[in-house]
Amino acid sequence: MSGVIFDRIAIIGFGLIGSSLARAVKAHGLARVIVACDRDEAARATISRLALADEVTGDPATAARDADLVVIAAPLGAYADIAKQIAPALKPGAVVSDVGSVKGPVVRDLPGLLPKTVHLVPGHPIAGTENSGPASGFETLFEGRWFIMTPPLDANAEAVRKVGELWAGCGSLIEIMDASHHDKVLGITSHLPHLIAYTIVGTAADLEDDAQSEVIKFSASGFRDFTRIAASDPTMWRDVFLNNREAVLEMLQRFNEDLTALQRAIRVGDGEALFDLFTRTREIRRRIIDAHQA
Amino acid sequence: MSGVIFDRIAIIGFGLIGSSLARAVKAHGLARVIVACDRDEAARATISRLALADEVTGDPATAARDADLVVIAAPLGAYADIAKQIAPALKPGAVVSDVGSVKGPVVRDLPGLLPKTVHLVPGHPIAGTENSGPASGFETLFEGRWFIMTPPLDANAEAVRKVGELWAGCGSLIEIMDASHHDKVLGITSHLPHLIAYTIVGTAADLEDDAQSEVIKFSASGFRDFTRIAASDPTMWRDVFLNNREAVLEMLQRFNEDLTALQRAIRVGDGEALFDLFTRTREIRRRIIDAHQA
Repeated sequence: MSGVIFDRIAIIGFGLIGSSLARAVKAHGLARVIVACDRDEAARATISRLALADEVTGDPATAARDADLVVIAAPLGAYADIAKQIAPALKPGAVVSDVGSVKGPVVRDLPGLLPKTVHLVPGHPIAGTENSGPASGFETLFEGRWFIMTPPLDANAEAVRKVGELWAGCGSLIEIMDASHHDKVLGITSHLPHLIAYTIVGTAADLEDDAQSEVIKFSASGFRDFTRIAASDPTMWRDVFLNNREAVLEMLQRFNEDLTALQRAIRVGDGEALFDLFTRTREIRRRIIDAHQA
Repeated sequence: MSGVIFDRIAIIGFGLIGSSLARAVKAHGLARVIVACDRDEAARATISRLALADEVTGDPATAARDADLVVIAAPLGAYADIAKQIAPALKPGAVVSDVGSVKGPVVRDLPGLLPKTVHLVPGHPIAGTENSGPASGFETLFEGRWFIMTPPLDANAEAVRKVGELWAGCGSLIEIMDASHHDKVLGITSHLPHLIAYTIVGTAADLEDDAQSEVIKFSASGFRDFTRIAASDPTMWRDVFLNNREAVLEMLQRFNEDLTALQRAIRVGDGEALFDLFTRTREIRRRIIDAHQA
């Protein structure tokens, strides 16, 4: 038991991540009061029905009032609006954090939209599923998974410590890094894989009806694993690609070069090159299993 | 209970698929005797230790002698050698089947290597995991999964019926199609996804050491799903790409066009195009879940 870390926590955007955070915080007694904020009426009804928070509102300013910690868990494209709405309501000394998948724009843009009297500690939990909405969350989502914090250079040390404690209390492993480094790393581990999955599933979606039915029927042969990733929230992912354009395009270029080389190996029948690559990739899998991230 | 369908079954190549077939056949009492053949000594020791077969040998001809059904479950590149070895040992009326991921070359090349007195019924179970070897198999692998048969035009109807019954007895759903159609369908549902997964994991494997460690550390954000696929057996997959070159290269070309379009949408910041694609791909996932293949 870590005990209460923040008296009052407001979570703005109460989907998979927001609702999982609320469940974990409640389960571990890390806050006294949890306020849920979601602009979607159906989502709010679900939050109330499942009793996922102590208070429920559709208004970010109402949620932020008196909060000791405000966690923005909405798509990146909604950040500026939310920041403008909560700014007048935030009490001095309040901590503002988030869970967004791209950190550069958060560190760059949010400080200018928030009062100087609050402490910004951006973060990103490396966890998730392909499901969306408040009902899809679960309290163990963050256990054994990394939470990356990207505090600005002038961040308040106490605020950084407390945000880290909160997520550690939810079972996360904590890492601190520079926002732009985060965006490069996630560009290859997360954004490029999603981009590729969306593309290949889109390629299949463009097939004529008969062929498409067969793709679905026989999807257990590999394709279905991509559809899981490509079922992720469309709004969230649109915003990720619009906000991490450079890192994604750079990684995509490397991927394209490698794909061209592999294409050539298949065309000329270079079995040795294929076997070598497939052996190297197997080794990476082994290392992920060893790192307990499989 | 289906009862015994083939008195004596020889399975040549006793890895994930071969050993799973043996387990399922045994569990459902579909054969009286199962003969396991694997050229790898360590594999044979595992087969004996786990008592996965009634007889174990390293010699395909020994395995095939007196067999009512011979199932080739080795990588495609080994088929010609195996066919030449078993040909003199096969008894008249024996059925020869396989589980290979590409069917065109099997239908084209195997008849010329086998006696005219045996019946060829090529097949492909749409099931698997990223693990290899006899210890990785399990008896429920084929339950609820498709088994595609691609019998030649002059196939023996009774042999086709019995092979279908065997796999249905193991829990499979049965589909019959033309070999070249199979290779096109699997090109998009299986071979292209594997090719893409191998490429992206290879791209990560080429990063400098520090970056590679971070990719492994934060792989839960999407990358790890690709590493699972890219951990599949290197020999098997080399042979798949060498044997289904045309269909794979054609699908790869469509994929490349789609990827280029998506790349452009990211570069110009076309959020609407991204959102539209990500919504369509989500629908494909829903259809796979509805088809109970998720």
